[in-house]
Amino acid sequence: MIDTTLASNTKFKILKQPSSEAWLQQTLANLDVVLLDHSHCERKAAGAAINLMFRYPAHHHLVRQLTAIAKEELEHFELVNQWLETRKISLAPLNSPPYGAKLKSQIRHAEPERLLDSLMVSALIEARSHERLNLIAEHCPERDLAKFYRSLVASEARHYGIYWLLADRYSEREILNQRLEELATFESEILATLHPEPRIHS
Amino acid sequence: MIDTTLASNTKFKILKQPSSEAWLQQTLANLDVVLLDHSHCERKAAGAAINLMFRYPAHHHLVRQLTAIAKEELEHFELVNQWLETRKISLAPLNSPPYGAKLKSQIRHAEPERLLDSLMVSALIEARSHERLNLIAEHCPERDLAKFYRSLVASEARHYGIYWLLADRYSEREILNQRLEELATFESEILATLHPEPRIHS
Repeated sequence: MIDTTLASNTKFKILKQPSSEAWLQQTLANLDVVLLDHSHCERKAAGAAINLMFRYPAHHHLVRQLTAIAKEELEHFELVNQWLETRKISLAPLNSPPYGAKLKSQIRHAEPERLLDSLMVSALIEARSHERLNLIAEHCPERDLAKFYRSLVASEARHYGIYWLLADRYSEREILNQRLEELATFESEILATLHPEPRIHS
Repeated sequence: MIDTTLASNTKFKILKQPSSEAWLQQTLANLDVVLLDHSHCERKAAGAAINLMFRYPAHHHLVRQLTAIAKEELEHFELVNQWLETRKISLAPLNSPPYGAKLKSQIRHAEPERLLDSLMVSALIEARSHERLNLIAEHCPERDLAKFYRSLVASEARHYGIYWLLADRYSEREILNQRLEELATFESEILATLHPEPRIHS
């Protein structure tokens, strides 16, 4: 069901700046909190896919792709929760870093801009998750946990590829590229200052 | 992952009144519209499970059960959409009957009543879906479509059982039974007048 065109195309990069060494150190020093935050991220990603599909029920292709993404995010949510259970981390609420809300504030209200921006924001969040889960997989000193993160990396890449392909389907390529440029620059600016609390998107 | 305690217990009935013959006739005369409405119902059911789990992120058991329900609703959503495609029915928006909104208006705002009422409302919606999909399965003149509805019936029964079990876990049994009595009476009253548009919950 999921489009895989961009899945293994490592040249397809949409982030403007790589994550900082400071983020990686903060994460490696707080693996349990980041794992709990990761659980919330997977839940929110499923919710975001379903909300988007609610807004455009007649866009067949979008609905099909987002259903597949939502299912996969729920599966990851369950997997992360199993890790929480193994590590005796309670599934507690955790306040979110400003990242998501700041990015979403850039979504314009009128159509067709709203759809384009929503898809691009989701693509950027997935792309950043992909980059950061990959960094954890590479640097996490706990071998099993590193392996688990490694197992999720390909899906995140696929997801951001799908969001990009959907945007490409419902917009002009030139408009998409220009807007992606703006939003990707904004995304990197948000992360230029490290959020003091350890999070996937701090 | 899904609790199956009540799945095959046919004595566990929570509806006050059976669906009317008028509803069945309206449905059988409008199978395509009802199928489209059914697709929206599955999407909404997945959304409702995820929203509820967002509100109680620290209720481990609830989160686990609702994740499983949400995944299953998304799978059914995909299956119904395949039927729409086969029958060349476009995945168009469709206005909802007043049923869902009326039922949700009964959810009290303060906790712990809000959780109990939310779970009971979901249980009633699933129970009614179970009863009605079963009626379609029994009376639909198209054999393949009848078989498809039959294949969904057990899940709907399981879902309403799970919502009931969750309510039982987070409430006193006596309070639950009293509230269920009130809400189930209200639910049957809503359906006492047939909604003019053919819908799963008309």
